[in-house]
Amino acid sequence: MRPEDLDRTDPEGAIAKAAARVSNWGRWGPDDVLGTMNLLDDAKRREAAALVRTGASYSLSQSFDMDGPQRGWRRRTNPVHTMLDTGCDAAAGVQGFPHGIGGADDVIAMPLQCSTQWDGLGHIFDHGRAWNGRPAEQVVTSLGDAVTGIETVADRIAGRGVLLDVGRTFGEDGELPDGFAITEEHLEATIAAQGPTSAVGRGDIVVVRTGQLTRARREGWGEYAGGSAPGLSFTTVDWLHRTEIAAIATDTWGFEVRPNEFDDAFQPLHQVVIPHIGLFIGEMWDPDALAGACAADGNHDFLLTAAPLKITGAVGAPVNPVAVR
Amino acid sequence: MRPEDLDRTDPEGAIAKAAARVSNWGRWGPDDVLGTMNLLDDAKRREAAALVRTGASYSLSQSFDMDGPQRGWRRRTNPVHTMLDTGCDAAAGVQGFPHGIGGADDVIAMPLQCSTQWDGLGHIFDHGRAWNGRPAEQVVTSLGDAVTGIETVADRIAGRGVLLDVGRTFGEDGELPDGFAITEEHLEATIAAQGPTSAVGRGDIVVVRTGQLTRARREGWGEYAGGSAPGLSFTTVDWLHRTEIAAIATDTWGFEVRPNEFDDAFQPLHQVVIPHIGLFIGEMWDPDALAGACAADGNHDFLLTAAPLKITGAVGAPVNPVAVR
Amino acid sequence: MRPEDLDRTDPEGAIAKAAARVSNWGRWGPDDVLGTMNLLDDAKRREAAALVRTGASYSLSQSFDMDGPQRGWRRRTNPVHTMLDTGCDAAAGVQGFPHGIGGADDVIAMPLQCSTQWDGLGHIFDHGRAWNGRPAEQVVTSLGDAVTGIETVADRIAGRGVLLDVGRTFGEDGELPDGFAITEEHLEATIAAQGPTSAVGRGDIVVVRTGQLTRARREGWGEYAGGSAPGLSFTTVDWLHRTEIAAIATDTWGFEVRPNEFDDAFQPLHQVVIPHIGLFIGEMWDPDALAGACAADGNHDFLLTAAPLKITGAVGAPVNPVAVR
Amino acid sequence: MRPEDLDRTDPEGAIAKAAARVSNWGRWGPDDVLGTMNLLDDAKRREAAALVRTGASYSLSQSFDMDGPQRGWRRRTNPVHTMLDTGCDAAAGVQGFPHGIGGADDVIAMPLQCSTQWDGLGHIFDHGRAWNGRPAEQVVTSLGDAVTGIETVADRIAGRGVLLDVGRTFGEDGELPDGFAITEEHLEATIAAQGPTSAVGRGDIVVVRTGQLTRARREGWGEYAGGSAPGLSFTTVDWLHRTEIAAIATDTWGFEVRPNEFDDAFQPLHQVVIPHIGLFIGEMWDPDALAGACAADGNHDFLLTAAPLKITGAVGAPVNPVAVR
Repeated sequence: MRPEDLDRTDPEGAIAKAAARVSNWGRWGPDDVLGTMNLLDDAKRREAAALVRTGASYSLSQSFDMDGPQRGWRRRTNPVHTMLDTGCDAAAGVQGFPHGIGGADDVIAMPLQCSTQWDGLGHIFDHGRAWNGRPAEQVVTSLGDAVTGIETVADRIAGRGVLLDVGRTFGEDGELPDGFAITEEHLEATIAAQGPTSAVGRGDIVVVRTGQLTRARREGWGEYAGGSAPGLSFTTVDWLHRTEIAAIATDTWGFEVRPNEFDDAFQPLHQVVIPHIGLFIGEMWDPDALAGACAADGNHDFLLTAAPLKITGAVGAPVNPVAVR
Repeated sequence: MRPEDLDRTDPEGAIAKAAARVSNWGRWGPDDVLGTMNLLDDAKRREAAALVRTGASYSLSQSFDMDGPQRGWRRRTNPVHTMLDTGCDAAAGVQGFPHGIGGADDVIAMPLQCSTQWDGLGHIFDHGRAWNGRPAEQVVTSLGDAVTGIETVADRIAGRGVLLDVGRTFGEDGELPDGFAITEEHLEATIAAQGPTSAVGRGDIVVVRTGQLTRARREGWGEYAGGSAPGLSFTTVDWLHRTEIAAIATDTWGFEVRPNEFDDAFQPLHQVVIPHIGLFIGEMWDPDALAGACAADGNHDFLLTAAPLKITGAVGAPVNPVAVR
Repeated sequence: MRPEDLDRTDPEGAIAKAAARVSNWGRWGPDDVLGTMNLLDDAKRREAAALVRTGASYSLSQSFDMDGPQRGWRRRTNPVHTMLDTGCDAAAGVQGFPHGIGGADDVIAMPLQCSTQWDGLGHIFDHGRAWNGRPAEQVVTSLGDAVTGIETVADRIAGRGVLLDVGRTFGEDGELPDGFAITEEHLEATIAAQGPTSAVGRGDIVVVRTGQLTRARREGWGEYAGGSAPGLSFTTVDWLHRTEIAAIATDTWGFEVRPNEFDDAFQPLHQVVIPHIGLFIGEMWDPDALAGACAADGNHDFLLTAAPLKITGAVGAPVNPVAVR
Repeated sequence: MRPEDLDRTDPEGAIAKAAARVSNWGRWGPDDVLGTMNLLDDAKRREAAALVRTGASYSLSQSFDMDGPQRGWRRRTNPVHTMLDTGCDAAAGVQGFPHGIGGADDVIAMPLQCSTQWDGLGHIFDHGRAWNGRPAEQVVTSLGDAVTGIETVADRIAGRGVLLDVGRTFGEDGELPDGFAITEEHLEATIAAQGPTSAVGRGDIVVVRTGQLTRARREGWGEYAGGSAPGLSFTTVDWLHRTEIAAIATDTWGFEVRPNEFDDAFQPLHQVVIPHIGLFIGEMWDPDALAGACAADGNHDFLLTAAPLKITGAVGAPVNPVAVR
């Protein structure tokens, strides 16, 4: 299916049909809480470790601070980091500790999806159903996600990462324009252009670079959080299912193309891939340093550890993904 | 030096002498912000990747939730995780999103050192001096650590981890009693007992298991946060310097033995190793699952990625360390 | 009805019968959001102003800080107050302001019901119904209380306060023991003992002193937050309705006697008075200084302003009540 | 002194001279923590109570929510209000309480000066000196204001309020333009125009309406927080001292005119009135409803209770001021 074949007036119909095609409900039993993380196994981690060539490491995290992209939508602010003790207190001699020791300490208040993050399986529902068909209200209450909280995958997300630099392949100066819908054809063509280290398969973690973050870094955040953006087309839903990837991440706020490809819509691809495929989505990652290295030597796969902060019951979680190549 | 040779009445003298012996100030130039992370290089990461045998992965993180150990000392609370949207809202049909999509979202407020964490180089000062000799007040103000914030090592902490299960070697039922001072002799004897995969050297990340967390998990937190605990003796300061390790972590609140080994003291070993050695210290890690696997097959080294959340200017940071072995 | 006449095994039946007797649903129209605050009018404020005799003022607020009573139940912590700028920064000369100005600034994170507070009308539901019969899920979502948020009474709560010092009247050394159920008889006897300035009627704000806070201040918080406590008997529900008071506050965590007067119960009196009577309840107030003055000269009524912080959509709100007498 | 007589190039000189003229250091003894609140006494409260004519009450608080004016400057965000429990949870039957009770609860994270607020005496320093001449670092550390925390006036701020509607007197359609410097002449002319109920004297709380908030409410916040604004001229410093008022509040972000009246300056009037006069300043108040009533009947004084939230050690505090007239 191509973007132009979508009926822009019927997101609900398209979502229902796609969900029927790609559903993984029951695939790993009725009690499953891992979704596509089931596909990332020990063999994959051994394969990933063998990919380490130079030993150079790269963080794929944006900075967590007040200069972030958030503008308050649905109370998503940038992180507020405050100090409990400082070097100034120590210098002023007011800390009251013995033998000349001084200390600094700090605290943070932040939405869990304010910056580089994983969407957990409890983040999105389709008509009141969460991953594996569970009623949303039995999964995520005001106490958090009692079933598929991010802690369930805290020890899992280390494996083979593959960078698909769609921005560099199809963009001008390495950047896709806002509103650019990445299709299956773009993904496959990027793989072909990048060469054999870019093959994508079962259990892999795909990192898609659109270049929007590069632009935002240069021009300012603007509407990065929730505005127009390049991203995956709704039509990639079958590719996302068929490839059996464990996870996919982008350098954008919302993973899918924005404006969305239906007239009155809000993140329709999320509505299929999270509750029906059980797919883990990473957002607001920063692949730029890594992408530079991949482009330089042509190797696009690497060992990727992207362990979310182990917050009990979280429906999303901040993460500092680290690639070693 | 042995613990019994310490003059309990003179922490300040002992600290000054130790600092003079082990100082790394200037070792990596006047502008250095990495401390012992300079010792963890690409070659070490290649070596670490080659240690992956089974591909099994282990999180060394405690859970971040209200059931944590904090009791409010110096405003260190447990994490407060609240929801911005829930499955109950979705089920009630009050979210106002189109085409049947529903969502959950969340926020957290927490001290950066409330649970599994790294101490940054700006965390501790000695007589008003931070790492590399900088005046504390020029490093850490109320705006955070402007020089050695945790973001400086966000892309670095992936390398060879070595578990030293001192609890299993010297404890009863695998647990050292509170107040047990781990000496250089205990560390070396543990290495010898565990065998050749436990060799510790330049650039390694050492994880010391005391067993206190195992006990707390069984008996309740009690005074885990700040009370009596097994931990490293002040006398290990030369070993910590000589081995040229990049970092060391424990399963306790405070890394060093408590009560401290001086009459009127507060964390004297911190006062040397952070500002003078530039050593990264991990606290409140959970090595138990990993330790079980290590004991089972005798291999005690592994690939360890322990990338702190990239919070600009943080003097400490939460982390989900993941070992792949 | 007396406490001993309650069927301890049937809270649900007792609640239903009481609700039927005292319901104010519809009394002020179908769109009402004020409940008993309708009863506090301009005439009452004129009456209250005329009660000012000496002009002395008293805060009835506890301190908002980490030394508060909360122990984490349902994520209710004590307030965490942190600084954004300090005098130490100013002294260190690191603030970067011109012409010698320096500043301090601060931030707080706290549950809205962590200390001296008003319960809003959206705080409690009976079988899914909120004040005036509205479905709970149409009133309070994850976005807050869209109908009866505390802001609706932000300009109202100033009027005649009456202190009923039940602790001084019936307690030993001025303190009722934990578990003491205050009945209508106790209230009326206190009024009689205190004399004519204690008459309670339409639109008044009643402050009941049990003395438990006095004890907690002396002996430590213990189980103040949620444990045993003196408080109003479930049987006072008719008195609370019949007197047509605008609000009532106590010096305890939970207003009603604890343990509650049914075998398996949680705050049954709340379940009637908030959603059915529409009554405003204040908790964790500190009446001690005021009570001393009242006892000294025998005047027990005063001008009371208890304006909640105007937090949009809050189901409860912190307040610093001030009595002028 | 008139604004045009100020040497725009020498704020430091002007501040020093003004401080010398108006200093109250030592006036109430070396241990004083109340500053001008010493001037608000019981007699003034009796006088204020007698001003209640109709009994109508008015909140002078803005709304505390995400739609506020803050834009993140120095980590000042708008309040983030989140729910711990909701009516949706109750409706979904997931709360686990007995006998049909359901509940909602909430939490907030906010800067203490994000909306309607009092500046405490520890908020501003002059060359490292706080109120009454104390060294700033001995007053406000990372633990808060240990000397003049807002709790010291928690029981005091109830008295006679006087509205000076400078906007209505000098503005077009009731609003002063941004950058309009209110002088002593404007204040006195407003008093004269409004009539005898506007007389200002010892112990009064003056509320100055500029109309900027009215404009922001109509046109959007824009640069309300920190941008250009009408406000008091630096030259009013003598009037503020001579009148012996207890406090003054405005409907603007920063009380004084912005841009400030010196070339390179930041809030120079604050630098004199807070540390030297010990004056309490209110900011971001909303006088519009009250102003309408005052204009209608010509009475501009009233009973004003503006009790700050009693946050221990706060250098500023949110408040819901209530006028009864």
